Amino acid sequence: MAIVLGRNRYGKAETRLVHVRRGGDSHELVDLNVSVALSGDLAATHLSGDNAGVLPTDTMKNTVYAFAREHGVGAPEAFGLLLARHFVTTQPQISGAEVTLEAYGWERLGPHSFRRSGDHVRTAVVTVAEHGTQVVSGLKDLVLLNTTDSEFHGYPRDRYTTLPETTDRILATAVAARWRHLGDAAGWDESFAGAKQALVGAFVETYSYSLQQTLYAMGERVLRDRPEIAEIRLALPNRHHYLVDLSPFGLDNPQEVFQAGDRPYGLIEGTVTRDDVPAAGAEWYL
Amino acid sequence: MAIVLGRNRYGKAETRLVHVRRGGDSHELVDLNVSVALSGDLAATHLSGDNAGVLPTDTMKNTVYAFAREHGVGAPEAFGLLLARHFVTTQPQISGAEVTLEAYGWERLGPHSFRRSGDHVRTAVVTVAEHGTQVVSGLKDLVLLNTTDSEFHGYPRDRYTTLPETTDRILATAVAARWRHLGDAAGWDESFAGAKQALVGAFVETYSYSLQQTLYAMGERVLRDRPEIAEIRLALPNRHHYLVDLSPFGLDNPQEVFQAGDRPYGLIEGTVTRDDVPAAGAEWYL
Amino acid sequence: MAIVLGRNRYGKAETRLVHVRRGGDSHELVDLNVSVALSGDLAATHLSGDNAGVLPTDTMKNTVYAFAREHGVGAPEAFGLLLARHFVTTQPQISGAEVTLEAYGWERLGPHSFRRSGDHVRTAVVTVAEHGTQVVSGLKDLVLLNTTDSEFHGYPRDRYTTLPETTDRILATAVAARWRHLGDAAGWDESFAGAKQALVGAFVETYSYSLQQTLYAMGERVLRDRPEIAEIRLALPNRHHYLVDLSPFGLDNPQEVFQAGDRPYGLIEGTVTRDDVPAAGAEWYL
Amino acid sequence: MAIVLGRNRYGKAETRLVHVRRGGDSHELVDLNVSVALSGDLAATHLSGDNAGVLPTDTMKNTVYAFAREHGVGAPEAFGLLLARHFVTTQPQISGAEVTLEAYGWERLGPHSFRRSGDHVRTAVVTVAEHGTQVVSGLKDLVLLNTTDSEFHGYPRDRYTTLPETTDRILATAVAARWRHLGDAAGWDESFAGAKQALVGAFVETYSYSLQQTLYAMGERVLRDRPEIAEIRLALPNRHHYLVDLSPFGLDNPQEVFQAGDRPYGLIEGTVTRDDVPAAGAEWYL
Repeated sequence: MAIVLGRNRYGKAETRLVHVRRGGDSHELVDLNVSVALSGDLAATHLSGDNAGVLPTDTMKNTVYAFAREHGVGAPEAFGLLLARHFVTTQPQISGAEVTLEAYGWERLGPHSFRRSGDHVRTAVVTVAEHGTQVVSGLKDLVLLNTTDSEFHGYPRDRYTTLPETTDRILATAVAARWRHLGDAAGWDESFAGAKQALVGAFVETYSYSLQQTLYAMGERVLRDRPEIAEIRLALPNRHHYLVDLSPFGLDNPQEVFQAGDRPYGLIEGTVTRDDVPAAGAEWYL
Repeated sequence: MAIVLGRNRYGKAETRLVHVRRGGDSHELVDLNVSVALSGDLAATHLSGDNAGVLPTDTMKNTVYAFAREHGVGAPEAFGLLLARHFVTTQPQISGAEVTLEAYGWERLGPHSFRRSGDHVRTAVVTVAEHGTQVVSGLKDLVLLNTTDSEFHGYPRDRYTTLPETTDRILATAVAARWRHLGDAAGWDESFAGAKQALVGAFVETYSYSLQQTLYAMGERVLRDRPEIAEIRLALPNRHHYLVDLSPFGLDNPQEVFQAGDRPYGLIEGTVTRDDVPAAGAEWYL
Repeated sequence: MAIVLGRNRYGKAETRLVHVRRGGDSHELVDLNVSVALSGDLAATHLSGDNAGVLPTDTMKNTVYAFAREHGVGAPEAFGLLLARHFVTTQPQISGAEVTLEAYGWERLGPHSFRRSGDHVRTAVVTVAEHGTQVVSGLKDLVLLNTTDSEFHGYPRDRYTTLPETTDRILATAVAARWRHLGDAAGWDESFAGAKQALVGAFVETYSYSLQQTLYAMGERVLRDRPEIAEIRLALPNRHHYLVDLSPFGLDNPQEVFQAGDRPYGLIEGTVTRDDVPAAGAEWYL
Repeated sequence: MAIVLGRNRYGKAETRLVHVRRGGDSHELVDLNVSVALSGDLAATHLSGDNAGVLPTDTMKNTVYAFAREHGVGAPEAFGLLLARHFVTTQPQISGAEVTLEAYGWERLGPHSFRRSGDHVRTAVVTVAEHGTQVVSGLKDLVLLNTTDSEFHGYPRDRYTTLPETTDRILATAVAARWRHLGDAAGWDESFAGAKQALVGAFVETYSYSLQQTLYAMGERVLRDRPEIAEIRLALPNRHHYLVDLSPFGLDNPQEVFQAGDRPYGLIEGTVTRDDVPAAGAEWYL
């Protein structure tokens, strides 16, 4: 029996990069939060503090900024691939790189003026490792709500069940979704826009008997619309809206006055996948 | 010398109300966070725990929900006035009520489907007291950015000054603004939309030599455009974007690659007012 | 009628300073978040962008760090006084300075090892202006809970009241308190420790009929114990713990199982003061 | 090629339970945040909205509260095991349950008075599934700092490396750790206290050449001290403290004045394990 080092990695998290492209009459703005994690033969620094193979995390930060100038910044997936490949190919002891990016949206107000649009955050996780390259795109904090066309009934009841069945409720969620691409080259921006549109469209158009059903419809729509996507994982918190009991005040409440709840909340997590695609090479989670 | 009770108030904070108006073909959605604070002759409960004058805060919460059903929910200012007047007129020991409201925006996706639009929060603070009624509208979390047309120079230098002067920088801020109305009746929604447009327009169109100058221009534009507003207070954090020094890597950086900073940040606070309006009756702060 | 500039100020917020005193065998650690706000004759920058009187906020940050080296860092009140006086006496156009400090606690683990103790944040607001100097000390995020010895009944009931009276409940709050000193010199650390002890002691020992009663007892205890303090303001959110109704499951619940609520929450705000002290010179709020 | 449902689960997240044990002269307080996630044969609800196998998440919440009354609440691991086994054994379509718990600490102030102690959060993740039972304990938000005995040098330099080597720096981190038990029965509270003590002791006593070395020392100490633990995973953000350059002000800075940085930050993640233990049965992540 011995105590040994297991899986490990290290990197620089949350390098905040704002890139302005000033070429034409109007400026372009890209706003990213970039996290780099590297893995490889790192036993020496763990066991004896020998850092001969440990590229400083400060250098990773510098690289993010320098690459923005040298190569420009396009889609987060493309910028992440550039960075991940750089670290794996230039650092002898590094065999794996994962670059996670958040992209914040800005709406144009003028040739060089912008307003931050807060209705979702676009995400990307790019992995370059011995088994190959994997690109996962996604979004989070997209809050959707239907005021009707949602039911919930027919569930099993045990000793602890008090929930009344309902044929009309508010269904609301903050969508967190990640989807794995079949390849490592795509029209990233067009692909993202299409996937987002599929998620929103399916949420709006599904008459729902459970949030699970809505989740599956959203994932299925993405895979049906986007052949470049192998698999999608969704985490949908059920943002409960409780119908307020107004009867103590002599009032009815025909699905009109709701209390928005904070905690607890339901949480529905699921994967929709093609049945003929290779398994994911690198772990990825929501 | 004696120890005595000074100013005091109490209430229920952050009652989350979602109201659905289902009258027509398509539903309307109002999403509010309502806080009530009452003041008056409340010495007994402080000094002896005698609660004969202390309407429970739980009742305030119930009143918010019941009023939503009885009266509907329109502009936050109007709903706040309704609530504030109710407490002052019905509770003998209560002489003052302040109702603070946050309204969250939702963008329509379909007849009964919505997406939360996260680009600002609308606020209102309504005060009903012996000296009269005061309505303060506002917004927060509106993040604006100009990539150019901002300079900062000509400032005094002391022993601790190292900042280089600049004739081109990013100017970015998260606008928090509150404005006091001259009266207690207005087209609240139209007034809000106009004030917001004035704030954004002035930010975009001002060639700026300091964030103070931009602040004043924003406030002045609101007062010029909206005769119903007496005074406006603005708090503008300077969201610094630091030009990254790429020279160690043999690269220039012509206003292209920036690090978005978290802390510290500049904070500019100011008031723009008409010189012939009555002073505020109730305290209000940003 | 004209549009004019009203009250205004500017500064650098949230400069994070960690100071290590390495003199003896064991190191001392001070961890501060320092915000500076200056006021005075600042019309020029607002109206025309003339910055001749606008010491850069970057200089304020530098001054915080340089003063830590030149003068050391003791109690937050003392460090704040040093900074505030510096800006008012050295900048011709600046007549007022407010320095707000948060001090984070660290518990010693060894001669140069520490653990962050998260049970409260100590605060100070120092104001130096034409009318004199004012020192306000305080704390926040101190969460206290009594599992019994708290009742709430005898309150008025209106149409919207459903709350049942109780003679036994959990009373919990996150204390936010600020107290104004009579002078600008005190044994700041000993004064703070005494005031904190008084707040905690009164919370623990008061048999409570309302949170207002507890608030007053806490403030009164501070003023009784600490002659150097003129006035104290408290904001006490009522962190509701709802007794869970277990009767649907055939279970009683003798004050044993509670749901901790997030929103809404009661909010009790009050001042306890000596009746013979001069009024506050500078505005201050919780 | 077909589109199919992949891995999925659902549950109730963040049920806030406060339990008061009132047996003796002084009360005991347990404060938990409980999240339940169930998996099994849940295809029907995803594909057609048939909820015949979907125990409502509301029932899971009720069960948490009812179990607290029926069985009491001891260590989070024990309460989690009770809940997880209940769902798997009573729901025919459920084959796996994961219960995640956060326990908040309270320090006693009196027989029934407490102060929230904010220096860490204790965690537990209990999994009951077909392959067996797994208990993972842990903690987070434990912030540790050494003012010296930390060096960093000897690392590789590439074109983007500017970091100077150092033989004396502040080393600070917010410990997040999870450790897997060999069995499903232990003296949970004693085991937790011992593991926490090992983590803190190793951080304090390790003369560090890299945060990786400190991480390994912390993990190794836990496994050496606690034979009941199979494996530990640590995520250590490097909370950078930047030595401020005071030379522009004619001042030296002998490791005395630091700026505490927010973003970016280094992030070191690693596992320390015994080489002869069975692999984890259920996935678990930091």
